[in-house]
Amino acid sequence: MLSVEARLQLLEDRAEIADLLASYGPIVDSGDGQRLAEIWATDGVYVVGDEFQFDSDQVTSLTELPGHQQYLSAGCGHVLSPPKITIDGDTAVAINYSMVLVKQGELWVADRLSANRWELQRTATGWRVSLRKNHLLDGNAAARELLAGR
Amino acid sequence: MLSVEARLQLLEDRAEIADLLASYGPIVDSGDGQRLAEIWATDGVYVVGDEFQFDSDQVTSLTELPGHQQYLSAGCGHVLSPPKITIDGDTAVAINYSMVLVKQGELWVADRLSANRWELQRTATGWRVSLRKNHLLDGNAAARELLAGR
Amino acid sequence: MLSVEARLQLLEDRAEIADLLASYGPIVDSGDGQRLAEIWATDGVYVVGDEFQFDSDQVTSLTELPGHQQYLSAGCGHVLSPPKITIDGDTAVAINYSMVLVKQGELWVADRLSANRWELQRTATGWRVSLRKNHLLDGNAAARELLAGR
Repeated sequence: MLSVEARLQLLEDRAEIADLLASYGPIVDSGDGQRLAEIWATDGVYVVGDEFQFDSDQVTSLTELPGHQQYLSAGCGHVLSPPKITIDGDTAVAINYSMVLVKQGELWVADRLSANRWELQRTATGWRVSLRKNHLLDGNAAARELLAGR
Repeated sequence: MLSVEARLQLLEDRAEIADLLASYGPIVDSGDGQRLAEIWATDGVYVVGDEFQFDSDQVTSLTELPGHQQYLSAGCGHVLSPPKITIDGDTAVAINYSMVLVKQGELWVADRLSANRWELQRTATGWRVSLRKNHLLDGNAAARELLAGR
Repeated sequence: MLSVEARLQLLEDRAEIADLLASYGPIVDSGDGQRLAEIWATDGVYVVGDEFQFDSDQVTSLTELPGHQQYLSAGCGHVLSPPKITIDGDTAVAINYSMVLVKQGELWVADRLSANRWELQRTATGWRVSLRKNHLLDGNAAARELLAGR
């Protein structure tokens, strides 16, 4: 049986991780590359599909990419689903979906739908992402395998 | 270091606020204007874009608007994303996205995608919304600024 | 006033239920019928609209249905919204939305949007679903009544 202190800590960890992930969309959709990079640990990595890999200092520039600027000027939302969070001491894993909704004519369309695996670590400044893996749900096995992980 | 009591209270506040926001969609999509207004504090305000402002007693009638009745008869869901919640004593701020999905032919389309800032206050009957600001993510800076807030 | 122990237990129950629901999408979208059935209690039931009812041992085969296999090969996400959770001792109710997003051409479209009522019970192996009721938000009163429930 865990102590009251340990049980509180686990619940607070969960709340902090949920908040960190809930901050992702608002930060990326307000175009703030500096705050975006701060979601990652200093040695953290963002792997997008099989094509792209960014270190945490490269994440800063993601909001400057032409594709992202087009999203911002059209009107977009990076909407994440509630994550399944598993905490193990100073590391954690969160699994969820992310959608990129973009204005097209009078409606918003889903330009991307991805499976996400977030690996997190407790750092001196709080929980940060050590690895985010993201795969488009386009029928390929890679995304399904990512969702099957624990 | 906070006391056990204070840490529990913070976690319970967070849970109550998350539940309050999670009740918004089901209440508005079941067309219950009375329960909808009860999400707001008695002096609470709902500001929609730069165009409309409703006091909490006007919120009661939002479900009666022709546009909302059309949504209900077509089939709709006001789907909110997990909020980022920041609590400071008896006030709190939550930031999230809201989508209005409406049935059109055989599919559901996103008729609205908005950024939301919810300002909340602890009242005698629990946490209530003092101010909800909502901006369409249509490429205008107002929605991005709302998402950039803390 | 609840004891510290009781307050912790409620918060842990809530976290476990949120995680159980957050595991639904990843399990169904990775096509794992066995783990899918384990979300339900052994005597649990899944009622889809007015048409279909599945016992927990029939849930195992849902991922094998031709319609679901088509979803998986096209690329799909069963995306759930944050639930409103009400716990009463060893039972609980969660209300939320579920969307099925499917790849169609270059975009993902919402093939289903449903209201969900999850009734849960505490079992020897943790919280499990005793009843999931799901109604398409197609304008019929049944889905609105489901959302109006508490």
